[in-house]
Amino acid sequence: MGPHPAVAAIRLAVRRVLHDILNDHGLPQQAEAALPPGPPPRPGGETPLSPPLVLVACSGGADSMALASALAFEAPKLGVRAGGVTVDHGLQPGSDLRAAEVCLRLRELGLDPVESTAVTVGREGGPEAAARDARYAALDTAAERHGAAAVLLGHTRDDQAETVLLGLARGSGIRSLSGMAAVSGAGGRYRRPFLELDRQTARKACMVQSLPVWDDPHNADPAYTRSRLRHEGLPALEKALGKGVVEALARTAQLSRDDADALDAWAGQAEATVRDAAGLLECAKLYALPPAVRRRILRRAAIEAGAPAGSLFARHIEEVDRLITGWRGQGAINLPGKVVAQRQGGRLVIRQG
Amino acid sequence: MGPHPAVAAIRLAVRRVLHDILNDHGLPQQAEAALPPGPPPRPGGETPLSPPLVLVACSGGADSMALASALAFEAPKLGVRAGGVTVDHGLQPGSDLRAAEVCLRLRELGLDPVESTAVTVGREGGPEAAARDARYAALDTAAERHGAAAVLLGHTRDDQAETVLLGLARGSGIRSLSGMAAVSGAGGRYRRPFLELDRQTARKACMVQSLPVWDDPHNADPAYTRSRLRHEGLPALEKALGKGVVEALARTAQLSRDDADALDAWAGQAEATVRDAAGLLECAKLYALPPAVRRRILRRAAIEAGAPAGSLFARHIEEVDRLITGWRGQGAINLPGKVVAQRQGGRLVIRQG
Repeated sequence: MGPHPAVAAIRLAVRRVLHDILNDHGLPQQAEAALPPGPPPRPGGETPLSPPLVLVACSGGADSMALASALAFEAPKLGVRAGGVTVDHGLQPGSDLRAAEVCLRLRELGLDPVESTAVTVGREGGPEAAARDARYAALDTAAERHGAAAVLLGHTRDDQAETVLLGLARGSGIRSLSGMAAVSGAGGRYRRPFLELDRQTARKACMVQSLPVWDDPHNADPAYTRSRLRHEGLPALEKALGKGVVEALARTAQLSRDDADALDAWAGQAEATVRDAAGLLECAKLYALPPAVRRRILRRAAIEAGAPAGSLFARHIEEVDRLITGWRGQGAINLPGKVVAQRQGGRLVIRQG
Repeated sequence: MGPHPAVAAIRLAVRRVLHDILNDHGLPQQAEAALPPGPPPRPGGETPLSPPLVLVACSGGADSMALASALAFEAPKLGVRAGGVTVDHGLQPGSDLRAAEVCLRLRELGLDPVESTAVTVGREGGPEAAARDARYAALDTAAERHGAAAVLLGHTRDDQAETVLLGLARGSGIRSLSGMAAVSGAGGRYRRPFLELDRQTARKACMVQSLPVWDDPHNADPAYTRSRLRHEGLPALEKALGKGVVEALARTAQLSRDDADALDAWAGQAEATVRDAAGLLECAKLYALPPAVRRRILRRAAIEAGAPAGSLFARHIEEVDRLITGWRGQGAINLPGKVVAQRQGGRLVIRQG
């Protein structure tokens, strides 16, 4: 008898990602590793590669505990070492004890190395963004210290749907609808094997494997936007639109990401063709481009001039765009980061003022 | 003392659109119309143009009554004739009487011609789609019979937000996120002056002008998806994400529309470059394109081969795409409309089987 379908699903998802990681690093796959070794290494020749290490980032919640269990099961079969990191955000009393408990559970699963890393969460960008920044910085450090080939994250399709809705609320275009990438970070360090799996499957997999899970009280705290979305917004949307909403949002993320990538590439190529010999943007040439491409070029130019990407909204770019499409002698336009955009003699000048 | 801000807002929105309509039809604007006529027309020369007619489609609800009132006010100032059409869907007992009442109110506003047109609503695509199809067919007929330059529709920013969420639930990409266009239909016949105005403003404008409005019971009927979205889904989303959601959704519509247009244009141009001398799609050349562009070409090819656009989902195109990006000797793929896609000798053949 095979494993429970939920367990089979999480293992398959992790197996696929481990194959990708080995591929991307040019490391031998299981099948190759099992082949006879060919000519033996000459004395003084290359030393055999030490097995690659893959870490799981684990909060102790159902998603990441399921991920850890699947990694512990699949990694040895592919000649991969499996380790785990838990981040102690220090936001609740006793968080250090909980982190220690998560470490214990990860070791019980057979992961090695396992470590807890404590961070100090700042305030920049709000509590959720600050916690996220601190967490990724700690995971980066851990990955580098251990020379890990990758760090697995337990985000599910439900998390993805929530992220798309959060992006939608910004109203800043399709890049913010594209959610989380399956592969992200420097050198593709972060991998999200569960991005097409629902939260319920991860939870079920923990249950049938008798893995104790920890429910972060933040996830149910209505002070957090994501929590309100999870417990009120998304269920109401499902009630109105039908059960397929989460899947539709996740598919929207993937399609939007591909579209945004293509348009960014187009803008990157087109940018060179709309600058004059002095490197200034020529309004007539910008005018001839599709609005979607033109606005991306304007956005790139503003960021290059020093405008912080996070403060640069669609309405800013629209106003700059009107210097091209609705020219009636407007004055200079102030953008975030003290960047100023103005039209001068058929050229668009964007620079820090 | 000027008009109430809500009335000023609806009038400004209509005035702008009337200017656009006159521009698009090469008709004189108010200022020009008021100029001395220049040399008098020679006998036997051109007959003077009869004033253009703009119709408002009016259900009797707050949005379209506000629109009708603004059209009645602004049109004469621009030398435009203003008329009105109401569609009797015949879905409720007494709908003919109500249509007659709407006509009466439109005439009281000074519109002329005014007419009610009765339609028979079919079943295709569900009750909302069937009613919409019947309505637009009747409006097309009325516009043609009267030789109208345009038909104004009362859709507001709130309607737009709902349309974006309905598109999001389909999960079929950014085109379905792009909502309703400000200008649509054959020759740009349909115009939506209130697309950036909220429903509350239209309602307020009716109130302060003492215009009686009719609340369509369908709008509150939870049997309709849009009604559930309006009364439950969107309010819950606003509660979770904040008050700016409607505006963010409307902005997403505009940005998505521009992005989708640009990518469609790219795909249209790229398609010619990936066909061989016999007109077949070359897999190697398709492979080299960005996924967003490649999938659009595949979708166009499937529709050209006879697949009905409305039944062709993202997952169909993904499967065809795997013939290019994940080729391992798959068999033919069945698409809606008995269209078959298969890879043969490095070419992709998509045709009705």
